[in-house]
Amino acid sequence: MSERVREILSWYRSDNPGTLSNLARLLNHGRLGGTGKLVILPVDQGFEHGPARSFAPNPAGYDPRYHFELALAAGCNAYAAPLGFLEAGAADFAGEIPLILKLNSSDSLSGGTDPCPALTGSVREALRLGCAAIGFTIYPASAARNEMYGQIRALTEEAKAAGLAVVVWSYPRGSGISKEGETAIDVVAYAAQIACQLGAHVVKVKPPTAHIEQSAAKKVFEKERIPIATLADRIRHVVQSAFGGRRITIFSGGEAKETSAILDEIRGIRDGGGFGSIIGRNSFQRPKKEAVEFLATVMDIYAGKTK
Amino acid sequence: MSERVREILSWYRSDNPGTLSNLARLLNHGRLGGTGKLVILPVDQGFEHGPARSFAPNPAGYDPRYHFELALAAGCNAYAAPLGFLEAGAADFAGEIPLILKLNSSDSLSGGTDPCPALTGSVREALRLGCAAIGFTIYPASAARNEMYGQIRALTEEAKAAGLAVVVWSYPRGSGISKEGETAIDVVAYAAQIACQLGAHVVKVKPPTAHIEQSAAKKVFEKERIPIATLADRIRHVVQSAFGGRRITIFSGGEAKETSAILDEIRGIRDGGGFGSIIGRNSFQRPKKEAVEFLATVMDIYAGKTK
Amino acid sequence: MSERVREILSWYRSDNPGTLSNLARLLNHGRLGGTGKLVILPVDQGFEHGPARSFAPNPAGYDPRYHFELALAAGCNAYAAPLGFLEAGAADFAGEIPLILKLNSSDSLSGGTDPCPALTGSVREALRLGCAAIGFTIYPASAARNEMYGQIRALTEEAKAAGLAVVVWSYPRGSGISKEGETAIDVVAYAAQIACQLGAHVVKVKPPTAHIEQSAAKKVFEKERIPIATLADRIRHVVQSAFGGRRITIFSGGEAKETSAILDEIRGIRDGGGFGSIIGRNSFQRPKKEAVEFLATVMDIYAGKTK
Amino acid sequence: MSERVREILSWYRSDNPGTLSNLARLLNHGRLGGTGKLVILPVDQGFEHGPARSFAPNPAGYDPRYHFELALAAGCNAYAAPLGFLEAGAADFAGEIPLILKLNSSDSLSGGTDPCPALTGSVREALRLGCAAIGFTIYPASAARNEMYGQIRALTEEAKAAGLAVVVWSYPRGSGISKEGETAIDVVAYAAQIACQLGAHVVKVKPPTAHIEQSAAKKVFEKERIPIATLADRIRHVVQSAFGGRRITIFSGGEAKETSAILDEIRGIRDGGGFGSIIGRNSFQRPKKEAVEFLATVMDIYAGKTK
Amino acid sequence: MSERVREILSWYRSDNPGTLSNLARLLNHGRLGGTGKLVILPVDQGFEHGPARSFAPNPAGYDPRYHFELALAAGCNAYAAPLGFLEAGAADFAGEIPLILKLNSSDSLSGGTDPCPALTGSVREALRLGCAAIGFTIYPASAARNEMYGQIRALTEEAKAAGLAVVVWSYPRGSGISKEGETAIDVVAYAAQIACQLGAHVVKVKPPTAHIEQSAAKKVFEKERIPIATLADRIRHVVQSAFGGRRITIFSGGEAKETSAILDEIRGIRDGGGFGSIIGRNSFQRPKKEAVEFLATVMDIYAGKTK
Repeated sequence: MSERVREILSWYRSDNPGTLSNLARLLNHGRLGGTGKLVILPVDQGFEHGPARSFAPNPAGYDPRYHFELALAAGCNAYAAPLGFLEAGAADFAGEIPLILKLNSSDSLSGGTDPCPALTGSVREALRLGCAAIGFTIYPASAARNEMYGQIRALTEEAKAAGLAVVVWSYPRGSGISKEGETAIDVVAYAAQIACQLGAHVVKVKPPTAHIEQSAAKKVFEKERIPIATLADRIRHVVQSAFGGRRITIFSGGEAKETSAILDEIRGIRDGGGFGSIIGRNSFQRPKKEAVEFLATVMDIYAGKTK
Repeated sequence: MSERVREILSWYRSDNPGTLSNLARLLNHGRLGGTGKLVILPVDQGFEHGPARSFAPNPAGYDPRYHFELALAAGCNAYAAPLGFLEAGAADFAGEIPLILKLNSSDSLSGGTDPCPALTGSVREALRLGCAAIGFTIYPASAARNEMYGQIRALTEEAKAAGLAVVVWSYPRGSGISKEGETAIDVVAYAAQIACQLGAHVVKVKPPTAHIEQSAAKKVFEKERIPIATLADRIRHVVQSAFGGRRITIFSGGEAKETSAILDEIRGIRDGGGFGSIIGRNSFQRPKKEAVEFLATVMDIYAGKTK
Repeated sequence: MSERVREILSWYRSDNPGTLSNLARLLNHGRLGGTGKLVILPVDQGFEHGPARSFAPNPAGYDPRYHFELALAAGCNAYAAPLGFLEAGAADFAGEIPLILKLNSSDSLSGGTDPCPALTGSVREALRLGCAAIGFTIYPASAARNEMYGQIRALTEEAKAAGLAVVVWSYPRGSGISKEGETAIDVVAYAAQIACQLGAHVVKVKPPTAHIEQSAAKKVFEKERIPIATLADRIRHVVQSAFGGRRITIFSGGEAKETSAILDEIRGIRDGGGFGSIIGRNSFQRPKKEAVEFLATVMDIYAGKTK
Repeated sequence: MSERVREILSWYRSDNPGTLSNLARLLNHGRLGGTGKLVILPVDQGFEHGPARSFAPNPAGYDPRYHFELALAAGCNAYAAPLGFLEAGAADFAGEIPLILKLNSSDSLSGGTDPCPALTGSVREALRLGCAAIGFTIYPASAARNEMYGQIRALTEEAKAAGLAVVVWSYPRGSGISKEGETAIDVVAYAAQIACQLGAHVVKVKPPTAHIEQSAAKKVFEKERIPIATLADRIRHVVQSAFGGRRITIFSGGEAKETSAILDEIRGIRDGGGFGSIIGRNSFQRPKKEAVEFLATVMDIYAGKTK
Repeated sequence: MSERVREILSWYRSDNPGTLSNLARLLNHGRLGGTGKLVILPVDQGFEHGPARSFAPNPAGYDPRYHFELALAAGCNAYAAPLGFLEAGAADFAGEIPLILKLNSSDSLSGGTDPCPALTGSVREALRLGCAAIGFTIYPASAARNEMYGQIRALTEEAKAAGLAVVVWSYPRGSGISKEGETAIDVVAYAAQIACQLGAHVVKVKPPTAHIEQSAAKKVFEKERIPIATLADRIRHVVQSAFGGRRITIFSGGEAKETSAILDEIRGIRDGGGFGSIIGRNSFQRPKKEAVEFLATVMDIYAGKTK
């Protein structure tokens, strides 16, 4: 095991050997294995946005096996998806790539101001399917936050006792903040802190903007002169907010956009000390060959093999 | 076992042998046994619409034994009903036909914009009655969707552990969509995807219209030129949306109508790659002899024995 | 055991021997034992209406032992009451008469449009007190129906596993229907169907009027020419709606009224094929001797010993 | 054991020997031991009204040990209090006096029209602390009654299985009745009936006034000429409403008032056949010596040693 | 063990040896060990206020290990924090300092009039991390109080059975009182009483002002001439309200302020008989050396080593 992976595992010494082993599986798999960086393929868009919006641009993706193959071909650290998608390939690809079972999901057929996903998986299902980790989305700033926090608390306790790792998607959204505030630097850093306090091993947040949402935070940012001008600055603040960098913090890619814009963002994440990315639509909506090349470039940026 | 059934079972390799055996029972029983096609008799209308509206047109149907006999005489793959109806015949017809216990039900004595059925059965009751599968209705687009998704999640986990198969009726309805949207192609395909992601082995949806409900979906349908002109086109999209065709997707018959109109619809489902039909009122509200002949014609269309 | 009781038990072959034995106890006890008819004494009015309104007309009824004695003296098939009333006599009268523990109750000190009784008993309490059956009230057409259906579902599963019988009071009431609709023929028949589908062994409904509440039902009643002119006609439709007569359907007496009017109603129930009555206030609010004579007359009507 | 206690215990023959033993402990302890009468010291006012309002008039009462000592010195049958107060003395006074753990409590820092206390104790805690009984408050006429009835149902089942006795404070209050109705004779009698039906061994209600709250009850009171002119008359009706006098019904003292007024009330309760009193503020807010003398007088009235 | 600690432990004789041992650990650790006084370091501000507002003034605090080190260096009796923060150091600092796991938490990204924290920890997690106690915040006067009281009731039962101590933060807040009332002397004393009645071993409240919030309390304060002019007077009343001083009552420091103002407050708490302080922001937001010196002064005041 590499020194860096040993170092990262040392941050989680309160966890049992089962969980440490699964964290090691995530860190040691694929093209970035051993570097302490991660690129994860998540495919929950079929549930979240519907099948045509997710898979029509690259119809191979309708087939759940495609995403296992893509994650393997690209050398991702792990593949994350809801119950149905994992179940449809878990036996065929058993042992080939670390899996993360998303335990809650939202659809786009109804909604409201204060999101609260449905529970769609469980720790026992994650164990049945051979997963290395559970995934869970919280929406801080939603009026339904207590329900989500209570759920992840119980699931985290169960997952850790079962030797699984815990990955938390922390996306502030709801009546407590403005739309712009969802990616504000103070809010994103706060979202990372909350996920860590709830016991997450890996935290996923969105790349933050320079906007500051809360006036009480604004005063401190100004008084303490916290640098937030560049993306790297802001990533640094978020990583610091995740227990002084002692929790694995990765970033989402967001909506499909120009490849060069994405790669610039990846560089900013890398320069700010981010641990990696979770890249869904920008991966599986491209033709497979193109996606593999794209992901290779992303990983090389993280690995320091390219600028 | 036929090659086609073996192929279908291969899609469910993450399931235990008990569940695979029950899926095989569904696929191998009756006139369509071994073809990979299914026609199921569902009789939940007594609960959903009331006894006179359901059974007065053919009063033999008041007696719960009638529907077991009809399903057997017609060679259906399975018979699905709520607790009371199954219980009233399960001992007398033990082992004669695969049974599906509907675990939730609505009545027509009260209602509201956002439907949420009551839990009226359980996995343990399904086992007690010798069933091959549980059935469950979800209403995506209802504000109560999280409650239903959470229920089916837990029931699915329990059913699969007990070696049962899971059949999900996925009927979008509620404040999230328009009345027309309930059968819109984008919405029906989305409903199939959601049921699959929730872990269903068999998905039942309504035959879709060419209407597109959601603007974000409309853009993709147009950009990717997804064919939806004919019923066969639309069925094909729905089947593709059910994990690239690797989940059994069947279609409901809807309200009683002209026989020729129904048979045309069946042909469209067959031509689009649908796996079969669930036909209630159009079966048990006809005199038995007529119903058996009608169902034979439907099955022959699916089996390719007739146009 | 009489042929008729054997026949009735044959309708419940999916039940275990424990439940069949308790059904047989209900059918074989008392003056109507073996006839397939039942007259049950229910005393839940102390909880539902208050003590003075229930017992002041015949103050002997304040004492819970009185009702055991009355049911025994009159030769009723069973005695049904809430926890406190049964507990106050269950040891003293152990083994003398089949008992039915009512598991939910309402009081008249508060209310609302959509009734939902409180849970006031349990299957374990029914077993502790030596009961033959549990009793439960559902209010179809109440906005709280899902809560009640979910409760009786769970209780039914537990009761059947424990070898108890299940008696369901099915009284449509609430915002889904009009006041007149509560006893409408379509609604009462629907209420019987729902109770049967929920797994009840014995269903109790109110004698229906000729009013038809729901327009969708009205069309069918007219098209299929379902006879509803006389009480016997309507009882026949209700009994048919209870699984073609293969579930025990009994009728409540309702408010205290003239003896001759009650006996006329009993004759109508008998002529329509009803299985018997549950008679509370009309029994225990009379002096004991008078009540015993009255109940004897009722039973003789059911037994065909008198017109 | 006295004949009277044997007689009272005979009313509870459905209970197990553990519960009968604890009922006997309550009836046999203290100055009234063996008479069939009870005077219980309850101290829940610290939680219900706050510390200064409760204990500042006699600051010795801030110390939880004081109330054990007072109950012992006065020869009360039992001492009832919430978890904290009992826990603070249960070990020091183990075995010296029967204890009743109050399982639910309200505070005065917030409120509303329809009261519902918080659960603040459990059967297991009552067992841990060596209690003879659990205590629970229900508020019939509150819109939250179902929650309270459901809680006491479950707690009663658990307590009886564990050999504890059950004492229910039944105080009608809430949007279902008027302020005056809270102590109306019909309502108090109804409250006693409800507590008995819920399975209470000992019922505590307030002394009733001659007001009749519900028109349906008023008709019966007038028609049946139920005497309610004197307090003794009204107590008699309440005791009759508690299963014809076959449940132990005791009465609260209410707010602090003149000693002579209290003693008059005690005489009325005694003359009407009441089983005793629960006296809180009128006991512990007096200096200890005075309180002991006062309680001795009360007990002598119940014992018939004084007028 | 010191006489004073023996005396304090004697107040908790109903607890099992496991809990007594953990209480002793809290009382015997650190600079104040054995004096019966406590100073605890709490760091839940990352969750409650966000990372920058909490840690930017002294960025060493972003790292969870810092707070373990600070609590050790300063000789605090214990360190209290939410799951994530404790987990990130519990293994590294195992056995070095008593830990208190906060089981519920609020964030500042959304809110409302009536606070109710989310459950973010459990007794099993506290045991897994080697904690001596659980911590829990209640908000009396919140409309959600019943939910919090019910939660702490269940957690307290579980914690005591597992041999842990229970620390309750009791902060009146919500629609039941005014803003000024949150620190009113009557309300703070009431909050202490409630926490004690709920079974807390250690109660934390805010230093009270001379304001009296409730008119019913005001009458008593005036009639009984309860002294509340000085902070020491008010502390004395609060301590008395906590079971006559037989429960450990400590006080929070509140917002960061001038050191001299804090020390004056500490002297008032000491003079009124308070058991100590919980000091968060005033500790960890200072440079470490300064914080250690500050805490030493505070402890010396409590220990009587300095005025």
